[in-house]
Amino acid sequence: MPAQSPFDLAEGEPFGPHTLPYGVFTTAEAPGRRRLGVRYGHHVLDLSALPDALPSVVRPAHAELLAAPSLNPLLGAGRAVWQEVRAAVRAAVTAPEHRTAVAPLFHTLDAVTLHLPFEVADYVDFYSSEHHATNVGRIFRPNGAALPPNWKHLPIGYHGRAGTVVVTGTPVVRPNGQRKTPADAAPSFGPSARLDIEAEVGFVVGTPSALHEPVGLDAFRDHVFGVCLVNDWSARDIQAWEYQPLGPFLGKSFATSVSAWITPLDAFDQARTPPPARDFPLLPYLDDADGEPGGIDLRIEVALNGERLSSPPFSAMYWTPAQQLAHMTVNGASLRTGDLFASGTVSGPEPDQLGCLLEITQGKGPYLQDGDEITLTAWAPGPDGARIGLGEVTGRVLPAPDLGTVSAAPPQEAP
Amino acid sequence: MPAQSPFDLAEGEPFGPHTLPYGVFTTAEAPGRRRLGVRYGHHVLDLSALPDALPSVVRPAHAELLAAPSLNPLLGAGRAVWQEVRAAVRAAVTAPEHRTAVAPLFHTLDAVTLHLPFEVADYVDFYSSEHHATNVGRIFRPNGAALPPNWKHLPIGYHGRAGTVVVTGTPVVRPNGQRKTPADAAPSFGPSARLDIEAEVGFVVGTPSALHEPVGLDAFRDHVFGVCLVNDWSARDIQAWEYQPLGPFLGKSFATSVSAWITPLDAFDQARTPPPARDFPLLPYLDDADGEPGGIDLRIEVALNGERLSSPPFSAMYWTPAQQLAHMTVNGASLRTGDLFASGTVSGPEPDQLGCLLEITQGKGPYLQDGDEITLTAWAPGPDGARIGLGEVTGRVLPAPDLGTVSAAPPQEAP
Repeated sequence: MPAQSPFDLAEGEPFGPHTLPYGVFTTAEAPGRRRLGVRYGHHVLDLSALPDALPSVVRPAHAELLAAPSLNPLLGAGRAVWQEVRAAVRAAVTAPEHRTAVAPLFHTLDAVTLHLPFEVADYVDFYSSEHHATNVGRIFRPNGAALPPNWKHLPIGYHGRAGTVVVTGTPVVRPNGQRKTPADAAPSFGPSARLDIEAEVGFVVGTPSALHEPVGLDAFRDHVFGVCLVNDWSARDIQAWEYQPLGPFLGKSFATSVSAWITPLDAFDQARTPPPARDFPLLPYLDDADGEPGGIDLRIEVALNGERLSSPPFSAMYWTPAQQLAHMTVNGASLRTGDLFASGTVSGPEPDQLGCLLEITQGKGPYLQDGDEITLTAWAPGPDGARIGLGEVTGRVLPAPDLGTVSAAPPQEAP
Repeated sequence: MPAQSPFDLAEGEPFGPHTLPYGVFTTAEAPGRRRLGVRYGHHVLDLSALPDALPSVVRPAHAELLAAPSLNPLLGAGRAVWQEVRAAVRAAVTAPEHRTAVAPLFHTLDAVTLHLPFEVADYVDFYSSEHHATNVGRIFRPNGAALPPNWKHLPIGYHGRAGTVVVTGTPVVRPNGQRKTPADAAPSFGPSARLDIEAEVGFVVGTPSALHEPVGLDAFRDHVFGVCLVNDWSARDIQAWEYQPLGPFLGKSFATSVSAWITPLDAFDQARTPPPARDFPLLPYLDDADGEPGGIDLRIEVALNGERLSSPPFSAMYWTPAQQLAHMTVNGASLRTGDLFASGTVSGPEPDQLGCLLEITQGKGPYLQDGDEITLTAWAPGPDGARIGLGEVTGRVLPAPDLGTVSAAPPQEAP
């Protein structure tokens, strides 16, 4: 079978000329040389070679950014540069006159190794789906209100562990840890028995901000470079025992998987959508009633061992990424290039739109078994019926290391 | 007045030959050239110049580490190198035969500018003082148990914002944010009215660890390079409204101040002390009953505008830093060079041993006013009656930027 031309895309291809996501790859011939690439169909365009191949299209000033081993220099270069580089890449893959020069720069996807595309600075995880927060509240706090009283006034978030953000394909080792149910007299230790997923959408900060200078809603596009998928793996038994009063810690910090591809925010211009109606007016720094639509009509699909598990709609999120960014910085906290913030689990109102097993199984399980593989994919509507893709996030569960198991003491008899 | 010789130390000097903490400095002559230094009395020894000045004492292989603009390369070099460099520095400042060569390498402290001494990877904050957790629990949850049920089974912690860790001396701008008391019908927005401190001790990770490989209690010294003081500035009104269910976020993320000096862990060998008696046996990965004493007899002093406010004893902490590290990694989370973890507020059992204004004022205030300056200092007993110092942490409160104020709606009348 002759190799397919990289310029010929299949009908409905989500990685066509309107998507053009960025990543970092190596080849078998040069495994130590990380290079920037752009995904185009089932191929990767070697960006490091583009300035020499198309000197009339790529600005010489951008050659150094494109020769870097991670996306961080490009992320930090600012929106004007992002737009110039994106225009050059689009010209490279679409203009017939460039085909001869550009064709040698493609590698097939299955011939490259993909790496974490940027160095994660701080990682913040939000909790912005009303359906998810309500469902989880009912399960974790059956005797209290499902939504905490602050939930509709601010996008609740917390910091996660940046050092354990891993790229798609990285195996996820089941964590060991402490857990205790109300029926146990004492905590036990061993492999998590309630390993779960959280289907989320992540936003990658490019342009940093100064300490003490909040980033308002209308500055969102100046700071956020692009979008990826996130699987925020969660050990529910560890989380349930540890999380009060200071929030999730070891139940989440063992692994957070992200796409190998960061799709530029500009690719979603046709997919912007208004968020759900607000129950009451928001404080001014969060009030987006008069701004551009802050939601994104991203359709996520969660698959377990190749079978569709659910289809969470990102358009149903109550809090938008611009609101998350405005909230995160309103106290004067600065942004750094490489900051990652994620939406929180995306769940819609329907039973087949839930973004984690805790919700899908109503807290009863089954959760993930060793050997299970979870894959997240997503796309949004683009111009002229095109699909705008996010890079997939996949991860297979490996058994926990044997650190021994300590069983919980039997519950004490009532006297 | 002739300049004092850098080799002549005052009686009781906490930065003598048994301390030798590392930092990063610049001089007025070369403000762009960050260099490693060691504090000795009221002087700074220029480490970058030491290999050339004392080629017989400093190993040539270490010259590159000592020429770096931050401590990170030295941190990542591992414990054997830390010990070799420390021995060389001690010989440089104490051996009479080196005085002529070493004397030109000193700068007076007031002639240099100190910088954040390392690049912070992940920042984790614990909650390990039983006195603090009990006091705070009584104030924040007056109708519940003071200590959460998990508190004596595991060291509770959470991730903080690494990007807003700042060096001592950096002004702290009062944050704006949302707050709502139970009496308010709706949240309000404006400058925090309850700005507080938290006097803490921080531990700096040098040697990284692999993903999926827990760091046991007995590996603490192989991974932790040194110790610093931390002021975890906290806006109590913002925190109280936001923190449930996912923990502190904007109430903490605006600033965390650390010492300019990292005192090597080995300096505290004579100050190791057993932690308080445990109420019941701990799970094996946290059980330190048979190990070396995990506490450190550090005496902290908190001063407000130059007046002593309290004297929290670090020896009273329930959870030790080795337990914190073992817990943080037991789920397979990896460590990176530059990870910082802090103890949580240090409070002792006595009224003059409390580490934050929330406790000192029993939740009633007053809290910090604009212009107030807080300074933390600490020392531990060393060999032969010497004092081992931690670098001070100081910060002055500046007014909040004017983002407008939205008052809370008046409470609704009962029908």
